[in-house]
Amino acid sequence: MNNRKIRMGMVGGGRGAFIGAVHRMAAAIDGEIELVCGAFSSNPKKSKLSGQDLYLPADRVYGSYEEMIKKEKELPLGERMDFVSIVTPNHLHFGPAKMALENGFHVVCDKPVCFNLKEAKTLQKIVKKTGLIFALTHNYTGYPMVKQARMMVAKGKIGEIRKLVVAYPQGWLSTKLEDSDQKQAAWRTDPKRSGIAGAMGDIGTHAENLAEYISGLQIKKICADLSALVPGRQLDDDGNVLLEFNNGAKGILYASQISAGEENNLNIKIYGTKAGLEWYQMEPNSLIVKWLDKPMEIMRTGVGKLYPEAQEHTRIPAGHPEGYLEAFGNIYRNFAKCVRARLNGKKPKAIYTDFPGIEDGVRGMLFIEKVVASGKSKQKWTKF
Amino acid sequence: MNNRKIRMGMVGGGRGAFIGAVHRMAAAIDGEIELVCGAFSSNPKKSKLSGQDLYLPADRVYGSYEEMIKKEKELPLGERMDFVSIVTPNHLHFGPAKMALENGFHVVCDKPVCFNLKEAKTLQKIVKKTGLIFALTHNYTGYPMVKQARMMVAKGKIGEIRKLVVAYPQGWLSTKLEDSDQKQAAWRTDPKRSGIAGAMGDIGTHAENLAEYISGLQIKKICADLSALVPGRQLDDDGNVLLEFNNGAKGILYASQISAGEENNLNIKIYGTKAGLEWYQMEPNSLIVKWLDKPMEIMRTGVGKLYPEAQEHTRIPAGHPEGYLEAFGNIYRNFAKCVRARLNGKKPKAIYTDFPGIEDGVRGMLFIEKVVASGKSKQKWTKF
Amino acid sequence: MNNRKIRMGMVGGGRGAFIGAVHRMAAAIDGEIELVCGAFSSNPKKSKLSGQDLYLPADRVYGSYEEMIKKEKELPLGERMDFVSIVTPNHLHFGPAKMALENGFHVVCDKPVCFNLKEAKTLQKIVKKTGLIFALTHNYTGYPMVKQARMMVAKGKIGEIRKLVVAYPQGWLSTKLEDSDQKQAAWRTDPKRSGIAGAMGDIGTHAENLAEYISGLQIKKICADLSALVPGRQLDDDGNVLLEFNNGAKGILYASQISAGEENNLNIKIYGTKAGLEWYQMEPNSLIVKWLDKPMEIMRTGVGKLYPEAQEHTRIPAGHPEGYLEAFGNIYRNFAKCVRARLNGKKPKAIYTDFPGIEDGVRGMLFIEKVVASGKSKQKWTKF
Amino acid sequence: MNNRKIRMGMVGGGRGAFIGAVHRMAAAIDGEIELVCGAFSSNPKKSKLSGQDLYLPADRVYGSYEEMIKKEKELPLGERMDFVSIVTPNHLHFGPAKMALENGFHVVCDKPVCFNLKEAKTLQKIVKKTGLIFALTHNYTGYPMVKQARMMVAKGKIGEIRKLVVAYPQGWLSTKLEDSDQKQAAWRTDPKRSGIAGAMGDIGTHAENLAEYISGLQIKKICADLSALVPGRQLDDDGNVLLEFNNGAKGILYASQISAGEENNLNIKIYGTKAGLEWYQMEPNSLIVKWLDKPMEIMRTGVGKLYPEAQEHTRIPAGHPEGYLEAFGNIYRNFAKCVRARLNGKKPKAIYTDFPGIEDGVRGMLFIEKVVASGKSKQKWTKF
Repeated sequence: MNNRKIRMGMVGGGRGAFIGAVHRMAAAIDGEIELVCGAFSSNPKKSKLSGQDLYLPADRVYGSYEEMIKKEKELPLGERMDFVSIVTPNHLHFGPAKMALENGFHVVCDKPVCFNLKEAKTLQKIVKKTGLIFALTHNYTGYPMVKQARMMVAKGKIGEIRKLVVAYPQGWLSTKLEDSDQKQAAWRTDPKRSGIAGAMGDIGTHAENLAEYISGLQIKKICADLSALVPGRQLDDDGNVLLEFNNGAKGILYASQISAGEENNLNIKIYGTKAGLEWYQMEPNSLIVKWLDKPMEIMRTGVGKLYPEAQEHTRIPAGHPEGYLEAFGNIYRNFAKCVRARLNGKKPKAIYTDFPGIEDGVRGMLFIEKVVASGKSKQKWTKF
Repeated sequence: MNNRKIRMGMVGGGRGAFIGAVHRMAAAIDGEIELVCGAFSSNPKKSKLSGQDLYLPADRVYGSYEEMIKKEKELPLGERMDFVSIVTPNHLHFGPAKMALENGFHVVCDKPVCFNLKEAKTLQKIVKKTGLIFALTHNYTGYPMVKQARMMVAKGKIGEIRKLVVAYPQGWLSTKLEDSDQKQAAWRTDPKRSGIAGAMGDIGTHAENLAEYISGLQIKKICADLSALVPGRQLDDDGNVLLEFNNGAKGILYASQISAGEENNLNIKIYGTKAGLEWYQMEPNSLIVKWLDKPMEIMRTGVGKLYPEAQEHTRIPAGHPEGYLEAFGNIYRNFAKCVRARLNGKKPKAIYTDFPGIEDGVRGMLFIEKVVASGKSKQKWTKF
Repeated sequence: MNNRKIRMGMVGGGRGAFIGAVHRMAAAIDGEIELVCGAFSSNPKKSKLSGQDLYLPADRVYGSYEEMIKKEKELPLGERMDFVSIVTPNHLHFGPAKMALENGFHVVCDKPVCFNLKEAKTLQKIVKKTGLIFALTHNYTGYPMVKQARMMVAKGKIGEIRKLVVAYPQGWLSTKLEDSDQKQAAWRTDPKRSGIAGAMGDIGTHAENLAEYISGLQIKKICADLSALVPGRQLDDDGNVLLEFNNGAKGILYASQISAGEENNLNIKIYGTKAGLEWYQMEPNSLIVKWLDKPMEIMRTGVGKLYPEAQEHTRIPAGHPEGYLEAFGNIYRNFAKCVRARLNGKKPKAIYTDFPGIEDGVRGMLFIEKVVASGKSKQKWTKF
Repeated sequence: MNNRKIRMGMVGGGRGAFIGAVHRMAAAIDGEIELVCGAFSSNPKKSKLSGQDLYLPADRVYGSYEEMIKKEKELPLGERMDFVSIVTPNHLHFGPAKMALENGFHVVCDKPVCFNLKEAKTLQKIVKKTGLIFALTHNYTGYPMVKQARMMVAKGKIGEIRKLVVAYPQGWLSTKLEDSDQKQAAWRTDPKRSGIAGAMGDIGTHAENLAEYISGLQIKKICADLSALVPGRQLDDDGNVLLEFNNGAKGILYASQISAGEENNLNIKIYGTKAGLEWYQMEPNSLIVKWLDKPMEIMRTGVGKLYPEAQEHTRIPAGHPEGYLEAFGNIYRNFAKCVRARLNGKKPKAIYTDFPGIEDGVRGMLFIEKVVASGKSKQKWTKF
């Protein structure tokens, strides 16, 4: 290929959106990707204005994703977009993802991957059939210290895992925000756009993904108690779940959007036979290691000899805090490296293939279906 | 009464014991109580040696609690002990407590109050009948910031409670310590001395007591998953419990003694409609208040205007950390104040009546029975 | 102007450099700026290779800054670069800055602004004469919570300032790293490239700038003790300074690169008559406010009602940590907004004019000269 | 000797006092000492009432220290007090200490040891001549993690010390509290009772003592800037000092009582060639070790293999926080063990001889005189 940046087209993310801007910043940070086109809104006028905000030429701003995919495909390779980034609400993931893949474009998709498990499984087949590259932005796995934790577990540093506690408390839905004009609250609490789960779909899937990513284990059965604690809310805003993993380890997962005063406090604690690990998303550059018989250690991004998996996802020296956008950027950076390798007919370095994909998406949808089913069941355990 | 200290006799707590020394330090710190006699071991020789260590006269060191209670009763008031402190393993609480009460002595008893619920209910009747003062050392409720939290909830500062997460992870039983000579591990993992529960009885009851003390709520139903994760262990060393409270609030309680690297990390988070509260026993002088719409506050022992309930349980100025022994000492201080008032035929100040009693003990035993039953049940919910 | 990004040319920052990549990421993150050309190394071949790494067309990669400025000037506006970003070692700031300004290009320059005070004052005159926009990357002032602190002081929230302690400990020069091939250590410890100060120039100036930025005060006199504590080192690697400010407040500034184990621990504490403020660069999203008579508050990026100056420099919701690159990016974002306004013949919004400029640069060079002079003096105080 | 507790008589510490109660709690906690008499106030009536509060017999409560020492001496050994604890303001240390020693009583004295250096040196001679045991309550050296830090330095774990920063900020004198009835503020800001220094004498000496205790170094020269920042205050309420130690290490000491919102934030950072140590009095059970090339460690009271010097000063298992009173109690416990050994004609275990004595007292008074002299000098350095 020519010596050029990888070219991104975006679906969603127009004025007033939240996650679209995050995707754009994350994609831009490493200088590997450029935004070349977009269908930023289902309202063509709003899409145009959004494209202007982003300094795109008018002829690359489209009124619908269908139009974008069709028109871009007609452009020569190197001019047309290389991949589509989908940043719409959940019910609008499947359509553009399917069409993009079927027209030869790689895809980055926001989570959860689809509206329901059935869609996710269909998409999985399409990804498999097309052989294209698909990334799902479970961005929290992009943090260097999360990767360090995963490697420590994989290398047996903490022994056999016995217990895992993953928590994702937020407080922003403590009031009935969806009754105001708040766009983010509105779609997330609406079963027609969000799916069968509220907090469990929005952030519970992040918790599930993080737990399985670091531990290398799989959830085998669950016992869930889901609630809509704000009167009148249609979907769960709080859920508490007992876990059992495939190695027999026990655990707890909870996700909440009514934990008053909590910002975005995703955290995980994993206890093995030799040590415990603890990580907090809000102080992401520290990984706490609690040993059975010696002083606890605080591993820090960029300090000492970390696993290459952690080092390669770090940009700047220790003590210069990297945050959410950098972790998110790691997903995009790795995805871009893989797309570039594909364009060059090469195999990407193994380390760049480390980003969540369609399997994580299917697993997330399975989690949503099972956790909702368990929540309704009178039996203690629901198998995964 | 004469102007003198309140006089304590101790049952248990001889050489090699842990909690006996804690009780003695806690009782001594405020200068309100003096140790005057003891039956420190069921081994009379060991009891004598322990008494010597404590500078007691030989004739006040007894070979059994029966002997102690009998002989002390024969001494004149003011010379004889005023109360008995019971610091033996769980299966040895009921006997001395019953006999002490029936012979007119007030009682301080370590937790859980008895070996089983039946004993506890019998003891409750005896306490009621004798009208004597009974304190149970759920010592964590003695911390000033725990009392501040309780008062904030009671005064409506955090609104209606929606969610509560209480956790008590320890790691000291991560190996099969009971196979060594470790006395503390041995009895705690032995159903004959500990009762039907391991971690749940030893520390789960503290978590349950703390949750109900601060929240002012009562657990209504539970769903428990208890495990003995160290191979060959006879009692649970880890337990995860879903909770529902009497006001409809949801919650999680977990207690673990195999959470590798954890010291004694009791902590609680309570979320109301207006704010969240967070307290960590290992940094007990801070109470974190997370407000919905304004900056989080860190309330600190001794700083600013706290509720009298917090202030009255603080000894020294802000920034001079008070710890576990001081909190424990608050139970003893209040108990002693009540005994003194009784001796003087007066009513104690209301603030001094704030210590756990036989009702907390009965509730703790109920918790143990229910949590073990739920652990065995295939149904999701077990009513309290 | 056309609807387009602002165009950046870079001087320095080729392969193996550190701060150049930081500038590029900071400039890219908000999608306001694109890198269009560069003279990345004084070695033309290395410059070419670096340009390739960055996906630049070969004809926009130059062998020297002189060539770059000359050639770019010949291109039409909108195609040519709009500004030059200078990321070379200290002794190579003045030349490209002067030439860029004199040829009509705005400038972003790394700190300290020049090799010595004389150069800085000359540059100040050129900036004034040309009327062009000049930004100095004292990037730590780009953090939202630093801006919140500054506004709180300005609005009198903490009362009259009495004491200020600013510290900047690092540990990376604890060994004689300059004897290895470490490029960053080599130039920073070399008087020919770094100037008369080592740690004091490299990071002491950041501390000085941060202190004056937040406090709104000016240092009036100092008493410095500078040392080269690693044997054989040519420039100071540790310095401790007593301060007096223009309002009579007292203070301490210290900077160190031999504080073993410290990462990049810039922090500041400011005490007024009503409250104290505390901020740590390594946890930049928290601002601690310690009130005289009420609980301490932790203000957090994105939480509650912050001053617009803080809010406008925040990209994502609370609890999604923004870090060093985002703060650095705020300097570039504001600079770009001002350049865009200039191109459009408009006045920028006041909030966008908040970035360090040539005056900060001159003040930093004055600090370096005074602190070195004080270090050599036997008198206690040296006037500023 | 008989098997009995060591007997304490107290000078000062009557109703309304602060530090007297601290001494009593610290002395009581380990069950080694009992309070048998006191001259609690120079007002005989107040002394009597205070004695009643403490449940002392009326005939052991004296109207003056002279009376106490005279009368107690007439009692038989074992009945009379074994030592005197002096808890009066600074100007009232020398008299009772001298008389107690000259009448054969051991002494515990609050810090700073005397009103001025001359008194301290006289007292040193008397201690030497009488051969009696003298303890000075620089209580912060009683913390287990302080002892761990001292041992790590002594054993070379952090290499050669290069830099030390010790800080003791408080905020309680941010207003002119001495104009109210606040007894603690009144005498501490009064040159007639406090001596020539304010904050520097009250807490600066603690900082100096802690720095030399942990580092094993001695301050060789200083450069001080002392201020009375609250208008009208007679003694310094803030002081900043540059340090040079006898091994060439550099440092900073600051003490302040006008650092608004600070509680009692004594902390120290020591940087060697191999690692840095960091300790905060307000979280005293953690010792932070920052290594040059590996993850930072948090050593914790009771966790893993600590030096015996740390372990022997710990009472309860890890995670049960020990605080200020326990550290203070360690001074008393060790002192009591030494008195007991003396009474038994034995040599105490080496570990029990670890408490501050008259030499620390003389050094503290020297520090006060030098720091005040340096504060007034126009020369940079004042030799110690």
